[in-house]
Amino acid sequence: MAPKTVSIVGSGNWGSAIAKIVGNNVQQRNDVFSTIINMYMYEEMVDGKKLTEIVNMQHENIKYLPGVKLPENVIAVPDILEATTNADILIFVLPHQFVQKICEQLKGKIKSSAIAVSLIKGFAINEKGIQLISHQISEILSIPCCVLSGANLAGEVANEQFCETTIGSKNEDTGELLRQLFETPYFRCAVVQDTDTVEVCGALKNVVAIGAGIVDGMGSGDNTKAAVQRLGLMEMIKFAEIFFPGSKTSTFFESCGIADLVATCHGGRNRLLGENVVKSDKTIHELEKEILKGQSFQGPLVAKEIYGMLKDKDMLSRFPLFVAIHLICDRKMDTKEFISCLRNHPEHM
Amino acid sequence: MAPKTVSIVGSGNWGSAIAKIVGNNVQQRNDVFSTIINMYMYEEMVDGKKLTEIVNMQHENIKYLPGVKLPENVIAVPDILEATTNADILIFVLPHQFVQKICEQLKGKIKSSAIAVSLIKGFAINEKGIQLISHQISEILSIPCCVLSGANLAGEVANEQFCETTIGSKNEDTGELLRQLFETPYFRCAVVQDTDTVEVCGALKNVVAIGAGIVDGMGSGDNTKAAVQRLGLMEMIKFAEIFFPGSKTSTFFESCGIADLVATCHGGRNRLLGENVVKSDKTIHELEKEILKGQSFQGPLVAKEIYGMLKDKDMLSRFPLFVAIHLICDRKMDTKEFISCLRNHPEHM
Repeated sequence: MAPKTVSIVGSGNWGSAIAKIVGNNVQQRNDVFSTIINMYMYEEMVDGKKLTEIVNMQHENIKYLPGVKLPENVIAVPDILEATTNADILIFVLPHQFVQKICEQLKGKIKSSAIAVSLIKGFAINEKGIQLISHQISEILSIPCCVLSGANLAGEVANEQFCETTIGSKNEDTGELLRQLFETPYFRCAVVQDTDTVEVCGALKNVVAIGAGIVDGMGSGDNTKAAVQRLGLMEMIKFAEIFFPGSKTSTFFESCGIADLVATCHGGRNRLLGENVVKSDKTIHELEKEILKGQSFQGPLVAKEIYGMLKDKDMLSRFPLFVAIHLICDRKMDTKEFISCLRNHPEHM
Repeated sequence: MAPKTVSIVGSGNWGSAIAKIVGNNVQQRNDVFSTIINMYMYEEMVDGKKLTEIVNMQHENIKYLPGVKLPENVIAVPDILEATTNADILIFVLPHQFVQKICEQLKGKIKSSAIAVSLIKGFAINEKGIQLISHQISEILSIPCCVLSGANLAGEVANEQFCETTIGSKNEDTGELLRQLFETPYFRCAVVQDTDTVEVCGALKNVVAIGAGIVDGMGSGDNTKAAVQRLGLMEMIKFAEIFFPGSKTSTFFESCGIADLVATCHGGRNRLLGENVVKSDKTIHELEKEILKGQSFQGPLVAKEIYGMLKDKDMLSRFPLFVAIHLICDRKMDTKEFISCLRNHPEHM
């Protein structure tokens, strides 16, 4: 078999961290993978220079993952078609709101035998309601799309701190190929077939993490925060059961499930957002500008999307935690009411 | 039905926090419960005065739960028989190494119709191997014994911060009676019948928490710590499956399961111990004296007990996390080897 060519679509902090891993892995496994990796990078100017040129000269994404050297075989490419034209494996790792536009540009221009793997957190919204990003990619590009999600805060992965992750692939051989692409001694990959649940966890945990941040901001202790995480997990499980039938409980025990939830509720940016929502009167948009300097919080977007869908389906009362988090982010509910929401949760009835 | 008389056996920080809850509840539900509660307290001298007298004068356990007022209907009693002679419900909340001696003193001296509820974390060791504390209590006293366990760091419960807990009761009516005794708006009780798993979780989470503290002490981030919690949970589930057949996966989703694990791995004293094991060369005993001033860490005791049992049964390789934590506490394994143990965990094979 000819070596597979890998392209990375996206180059934020998580994209850059994953570029470091796969850039090194393809060099070590050059019987399986081509050693040059194109990384699509949305062009922007940093200190008067093009970011792609900085990355290709300095081998460092000085804007989104400063201080971490990228392998020299990872080439930043500002043209999405040039970056992906030869790809056998497309790694999608960009904010979920850009997926549709990028995929429409790629439609008909990539290899028909290619496979995709989505590292994206979030849902797409279309006329049918909520759609998984992997399904959206697969539908637009007419190729299979696997997923990778786990307790993987980007900065820690980039610093090679030990962690686990979960690959969702319905096809076992593809799952094994992706394990070879992503696994390192500090980044352990488990492969499961229940891809939808892997992806659902990755989107919903950011909503729960805002809730964890809210109780942090209120000065609550570890017990209350544990209750938020547990009740959030119960809503995640119920959401998967209702909207993605066939979801397996065992998947929630993988890294994509409880582990990612716990890591995100303690170290992630959405937790930080929740804390700031309590401690200030600023809007989410203002907090984004202040805290993330150009990137966006995924949690409030997902919370808004599922709120709309649950409202349409008359299911708001079954997901009170998700609902309260959306309303608090939208400044339509006082943060003080959050504890009442926990207290009166249907899990207690 | 005559109101039930409640006695509390034990008066450390958790015993005192629970005395506050049940002391208030029996006053509000005086059709169901007698309003006077005896709390057995091991007598000791504090600043030249008897601790029981201080508690009964000041209504505060100044040694183990300072700053928290206890209801005046909770009476500290230094004589174990006097404290329990009329009890219909015996709440056991004392370090697990004292249970056997106390129960043998009570044998034949309590009401034969009484029921017990154990809030104790840990296992008993006898000639048959490991025994649950609730089984030990039940066997010695010939009465049924329920359990209560959850994400309930004592100080936070005493300060009325919202949390959840799990009551394990094979008998539904007893479960409901206990819910009435313990539930408050800030302390939500769920009742399950799978009592053994509730108790197993309460014992084993302290072992996992030492592991979480070890990676904290090594300066690892949230990803690694999440992996410790997940792998620890997988060993907890396997332990329950092997040694307590009939254990239900759903119980691990209750407060006694993941929630307590997460709270303990972030806020508990066993986590603190793990951190100090890495940062110093002191023995567990020295750290106990230094950090707990007279109380004991439950985690190392449980880790030692299960290590002995697993070794006898030739099962050490199936529980590498538990084993490593015991060996590190015993200073027989270097803390640096802990990450290799995570990396090579059978869950990854």
